Amino acid sequence: MTDITVIPDGSITSPTGFTAGATFAGIKTPGEDKKDLGLLYTEKPANVAGTFTTNSIVSPSVVLTKGIVNKGGQIKGLAVNSGCANCSVGEQGLIDAKEMASISAEKLGTKSEEIVVASTGVIGVELPMALIRDHIPTLTLDKSGGHELAKAILTTDTRVKEYAVSFEAGGTTITVGGMAKGSGMIHPNMATMLAFITTDAVVDITYLRQTLTEVVNLTFNQIDVDGDQSTNDTVLLLSNGLAKNTELSGDSPDSDKFKLAVHEVALYLAKEIARDGEGSQRLIEVIVEDAHTNNDALKAARSVASSMLVKTAVYGRDPNWGRILMAIGKTGITLDESRIKIFINDIQIVAEGKAIAYNIQSIVAALGESEVTLRVNLGCGTGKGESWGCDLTEEYVVFNSAYTT
Amino acid sequence: MTDITVIPDGSITSPTGFTAGATFAGIKTPGEDKKDLGLLYTEKPANVAGTFTTNSIVSPSVVLTKGIVNKGGQIKGLAVNSGCANCSVGEQGLIDAKEMASISAEKLGTKSEEIVVASTGVIGVELPMALIRDHIPTLTLDKSGGHELAKAILTTDTRVKEYAVSFEAGGTTITVGGMAKGSGMIHPNMATMLAFITTDAVVDITYLRQTLTEVVNLTFNQIDVDGDQSTNDTVLLLSNGLAKNTELSGDSPDSDKFKLAVHEVALYLAKEIARDGEGSQRLIEVIVEDAHTNNDALKAARSVASSMLVKTAVYGRDPNWGRILMAIGKTGITLDESRIKIFINDIQIVAEGKAIAYNIQSIVAALGESEVTLRVNLGCGTGKGESWGCDLTEEYVVFNSAYTT
Repeated sequence: MTDITVIPDGSITSPTGFTAGATFAGIKTPGEDKKDLGLLYTEKPANVAGTFTTNSIVSPSVVLTKGIVNKGGQIKGLAVNSGCANCSVGEQGLIDAKEMASISAEKLGTKSEEIVVASTGVIGVELPMALIRDHIPTLTLDKSGGHELAKAILTTDTRVKEYAVSFEAGGTTITVGGMAKGSGMIHPNMATMLAFITTDAVVDITYLRQTLTEVVNLTFNQIDVDGDQSTNDTVLLLSNGLAKNTELSGDSPDSDKFKLAVHEVALYLAKEIARDGEGSQRLIEVIVEDAHTNNDALKAARSVASSMLVKTAVYGRDPNWGRILMAIGKTGITLDESRIKIFINDIQIVAEGKAIAYNIQSIVAALGESEVTLRVNLGCGTGKGESWGCDLTEEYVVFNSAYTT
Repeated sequence: MTDITVIPDGSITSPTGFTAGATFAGIKTPGEDKKDLGLLYTEKPANVAGTFTTNSIVSPSVVLTKGIVNKGGQIKGLAVNSGCANCSVGEQGLIDAKEMASISAEKLGTKSEEIVVASTGVIGVELPMALIRDHIPTLTLDKSGGHELAKAILTTDTRVKEYAVSFEAGGTTITVGGMAKGSGMIHPNMATMLAFITTDAVVDITYLRQTLTEVVNLTFNQIDVDGDQSTNDTVLLLSNGLAKNTELSGDSPDSDKFKLAVHEVALYLAKEIARDGEGSQRLIEVIVEDAHTNNDALKAARSVASSMLVKTAVYGRDPNWGRILMAIGKTGITLDESRIKIFINDIQIVAEGKAIAYNIQSIVAALGESEVTLRVNLGCGTGKGESWGCDLTEEYVVFNSAYTT
């Protein structure tokens, strides 16, 4: 319908002009095929839009990157590491983030102010700069390097998260690729949500920013694993213009198509993050429809996906709809209890705000699937919103309480 | 210092003129010494102040009680049941709540509009009115009945929560007693927080309300087990005036003493609720001091006590202070990272927002105690706030995911 094609084996280096490389530098604990340091490079300087953590405790790596992105300059590269968040380490943090940018600039033959950085891992520990100084110069960047780079940002994620799509705009093929890391948590850290999306489209910077903000609000900002917000969350969208299309600036059908493509990549990555939440066994998709406004629906959906009681009920395959109502009610959105309908994987269990007769075994079976959709119809408008979370299992507690200091 | 004396074996019927009784009517699953239905009676009509759930999905029992309390009328009795929340059952809910009040009024020889009701238990199931009709008339109320009534409001709480204190006001002894139920969770319900406090003091209704609001904000509103808010939360404060003191109305040292006494009872009950959280092994007390404002400190303390990552770290005896900083930062309060100090049971582990050298074994030992105090000094003002939570264990997940529908 939208003429957007998924690229098989797609990655962040699928769009024209992007290359990458990664290595294991010893910043995180070793393991088979692990990477912890890498670079993304764009032949042609790219426009860049970004959204960042709103936590007041923020990594100096985020501070540096945010400064560059918000100034509106173009960038040539991105340096990433996992194993150390470069956060809560005093003034050394910004010094190290700058040095990481400068070492990367030298490697890529460009200037420090054209490099953005992102870190994820332990809080309260300084970046091991000796390892970074030694290993960045040894990196080999190429077209297939996206897959390696996707490994270099993982912490306790159980798998890489990458995706790419393409579409036609006025006879030109435009590609959008992305990668993300999720909410695996490992002592002594809260998770960091990182996602990077590239495109070869020619995009006006204002429209690029608008696209990212809209898409992030509907995707990454609607996922939840445990209600805690990291100090290092970063989403970047880079466009280097090598597709040589007519500039996209928000007034054309192609602009809408671009936004849909970015949305598709972001949505895929966001759902992968939710699905791979620490200890989780299934993805929970929450759809709230016929709410008073879209905002009400988004808020309600996120509250359901974030509720510990809903998460544990899904884990226990228990159609505990009282918990769903509770999670919606606590948001304070407009609602009329007597109009509420609830469906679990399309089987209706609540009408007019009350339980109806349903086949309990069908519901238990539905709750055992790898994706569980909780759909709530509020019957008081046309607003719609979705959110994604995962079930809460004993394993989450074990992972996050294991004593390893 | 405050001349407030704890009453040994105190209960909600410790103040003069209050009696109570409870029975097992069969509303919840049976068990040794279980009660699920009861009445509190005051010889002399009592002024009453209340605070209620702000969830938009609300039990008709709460609606009925809130109407009576907010109208400012005096009451003669309180009827409570556990095992059924009387919530999300359509119009029958209000009909049943009114009938429960009317049966209780008949039993107590008073009028329906002088009876308030409170329910806790399963959502989405109608009150078993036949059981209530049969058992309320059989109740025996007496001075020692407070202990029985404290059992009648429990769900999966592992123990009763009751407390009473007394103090002198102008030569008169005033007594304040209270009981609460906590955040044990049982399928298919979220917890309900119920607390009831009685006093024989003569108290102006305006001052009674002001006292309750201030005290609830510092106690019950500062506890957390799992971030979810029930549809039935209710706190009531009843004063029947039988102590015959000079009326307390906010302008005297005795009024302050009254507020302190109510605070002491509420604080004891609130901490007992946090300590008895489903699956928990220890109480977590969070103290935030030297914040920009008291409100900032309260918000920060509650965020730390509510964080799943902090709760699991305490369970794992892991001094993971990055998670404490993260939880404070995500509130958006005023702070300067470089001024932050963190103490675990008075052992300092962070200064100037960075780790300092500390004896790891001392911290692990401190985290193993039955009460763990996390104290954070923000160094940017004189604001202070406290909050209470519990650790998050595998048992919480097991309890709340057990399939029992």
